[in-house]
Parts: sequence; C-alpha cells; structure tokens
Amino acid sequence: MSEFRVMEIKQSIFEDNDKDAEKLRQELKSEKTFLLNLMSSPGAGKTTTLTRTIEALKDEMKIGVMEADIDSDVDAHTISQTGVKVIQLHTGGMCHLDADMTRQGIKGLGTKEIDLAILENVGNLVCPAEFDTGASKNAMILSVPEGDDKPLKYPLMFSICDVLLINKIDAMDYFDFDLEICKERAKKLNPDIKIIPISARNGEGIEEWAEWLRAEVKEWKEE
Amino acid sequence: MSEFRVMEIKQSIFEDNDKDAEKLRQELKSEKTFLLNLMSSPGAGKTTTLTRTIEALKDEMKIGVMEADIDSDVDAHTISQTGVKVIQLHTGGMCHLDADMTRQGIKGLGTKEIDLAILENVGNLVCPAEFDTGASKNAMILSVPEGDDKPLKYPLMFSICDVLLINKIDAMDYFDFDLEICKERAKKLNPDIKIIPISARNGEGIEEWAEWLRAEVKEWKEE
Repeated sequence: MSEFRVMEIKQSIFEDNDKDAEKLRQELKSEKTFLLNLMSSPGAGKTTTLTRTIEALKDEMKIGVMEADIDSDVDAHTISQTGVKVIQLHTGGMCHLDADMTRQGIKGLGTKEIDLAILENVGNLVCPAEFDTGASKNAMILSVPEGDDKPLKYPLMFSICDVLLINKIDAMDYFDFDLEICKERAKKLNPDIKIIPISARNGEGIEEWAEWLRAEVKEWKEE
Repeated sequence: MSEFRVMEIKQSIFEDNDKDAEKLRQELKSEKTFLLNLMSSPGAGKTTTLTRTIEALKDEMKIGVMEADIDSDVDAHTISQTGVKVIQLHTGGMCHLDADMTRQGIKGLGTKEIDLAILENVGNLVCPAEFDTGASKNAMILSVPEGDDKPLKYPLMFSICDVLLINKIDAMDYFDFDLEICKERAKKLNPDIKIIPISARNGEGIEEWAEWLRAEVKEWKEE
C-alpha cells in the first residue's frame, strides 16, 4: 500500500519571509504542532534517517511528513510505507522552501492532531539555509562520504541548525573523515549545535536522536 | 608551496544570461581556450577528480582552474599543489555561477595561453544547472554514496551535462547502488550523455575521462 498526494507548490508572494516565518511558527505553536526542517546535500540519507525516526516515535506521537523535491515522488513513496501521513511537494524547480511554501505544504498535510510535522527540504546545502521556513527547529545531516571539510565550505547551513546528524558512520573506516575535526569545525561556527553521529543503515545513534526530538516536541507543546 | 589568489566576484548585472553566456563562449573560442564547467553535490569528489585530471593532462596542455565556493579556500589550496594556475572565487553566498561571474573569474585567471580552463562550480545539484556559464562543455560528478535515484530527483542537471562521471566506484560494494539502473535513468533524460565510472581515489576510469577531455579540447581548438 502506498497512498500519498502530490502537490505543486507556488513561489511565495511575500516580501518579508522572516516575518511570515515567525507568523507560521506562532500558528503552529498554537496548534501544538512541532515542525522540524530537515536539510542536507543530495544523497546524505534524509529519507532513510526519516524512516528510522518514524519507526522510533510513531507509537508515541502523530507524525506527518512533507517531502519537498524538484521532481519525482520516490521519497514520498518510501515514507508512505511507514504508515504515517505524507505529502510530496513539488517545488517547480525552486531550490529551497520559504515560509509561505511550507505553509502550503502544511495546509496540504493538515496539522490537526499532528504532533510532529517534518519537512524534508530540497537536497541542497546552500539555498535552504537562507530561508526561515517557520520551523520550530532546524536539523541537518552531513554524511561521512561528503567529507569533514563541509563546515568550512557551507558555513551558513551549519550556523543556522540546532542539531547536526553525522550519518553513514558505519562507512567511517572507508573514507578519510575525522569526526573530531568535523565536530570542532561545526562548533566553531555554532557553539550550541547538538551533534549526533548516526548510521541510518544499522540504527546506531538513532535512539539518541529520537530522544532529542522527543524532548523538543514535549517542550514545544508545554511551553 | 601554495600560491593562489582569492577573488570576491559580484552578482551579475546582465538580464539575459543566455546571450551573455554565448558571447563568453565565442570569446573563449577565439582565444582557443576550452572551458569545462564541473558540477556536483557537495562532497562528490570534484577536487580529487580535478587533481587526477590535472596529473593526467598537465604535460600536454596549459591548465587553469577556478574554484568557486561560498567561503573558504580549501580547494584552491589543494589544487595549487599540482602546480597549475588556480584562483579561488568567492560567490558572496550565491549558490551558482552565471556567465558574467564566470567571466570575472576567467579575467582573474587570465586565459592567455591557457588551453583548458576548468570551473569547479559551487557544490549544488539544483541552481548551477539553471545558469549557462559560457562553458564549452558541462560535466557533472555523481558519487556512489549519493544513490542511483539522483537522476529522478535532479533531472535538469543530468539533462544539461555532456558527460557524467560516476565517482567512488571503489565503494560500490558498500552501498546499494545499481550502476546499470543509474545509467538508464540518466540516458532517459539525456540520450547523448557520455557516462564514465571512475574512482578518483584509486585512479580507475581516469584515463578514459582524460581521453574524452583531450579529444574535446583538440576539437575546440581546431574547429
């Protein structure tokens, strides 16, 4: 079984995205829906990580997923197999989502009774970092094969994220990746960033990540 | 020894990038300089592939390299060790290069007597595909850990490239990557695309790639 909707989202007409993002964040707050904005390079493992995250949390909270892509519905298809509500957003060539585009997705998904909404942003380390989507928290995945120099090259992305998942650590022996140096580089840009090494393939680190997310969702609903 | 210049490039003022790109292409043609635009996701192995390419060709032709990044000069530093002329272009946050930005880089590099100029574009599978840089040919690298579904998700990039290098094939056994399916997906978008599996790490496939580039540079200069 695989049921989901594909939705073409339109480019935003709002001039002040920051203001609009703050508005969306407050709307979601009042609906007690926590929105996670998940970003990474193409192929860093967003969808596999998401599948693991859903498995870890779906018995405790209602989860809804928005899969943003320029084209295709491969990811929505994959996520739909987990049994949670999912919608595929086609960005019409756009390389990122802003707050209004996210709002269109949220409406398509329907937030009523959703505790945790997850936006899987377009695979891109540049543009998504520049646009506040209205998310409660921003997360990024960096995968080991990409290299430990990425914080140096894409500093804004590392600066605006609350949590950094370092994925594919099961392949660590195969690539020249210095975990400590990578952490140091990320912390230099963003001293408060939470860093969790994971393997979406074998499940390592997923419980720590689920625990972080669980606490954040709880705090968001109670505040 | 490591000498190179860092140059801040400015956003283009030209409205018609396609026209400007065609103009730059003709200018380079008259100077007998072949310009290769090399694109990929962050961490797919552009710089390592470039180092191998330079090693294979530097005794036969004069090579100059433009390293485009939002920040840092890590890549220019690496390339400078090969002995070829290199310039680091800082895009000021821009996620791609257009023809005018490329022209600024070319001027900074100085094309006089350069046979092969290589632009290592910003690591991004989305935006660089939308802007003609004025290059003689477009090349992209997809790395095995990114997955064989990338042509489905980033179709424009695969459509506009003349050659696709599938890198990190030495890690093929470690990841679920179906080379034949990936080739099929790319060919469906772009029947004329030349596909060369390589390992920039161990050198596999580099000679075939160098041979392709050698023939293209020769044709460009003779036409």
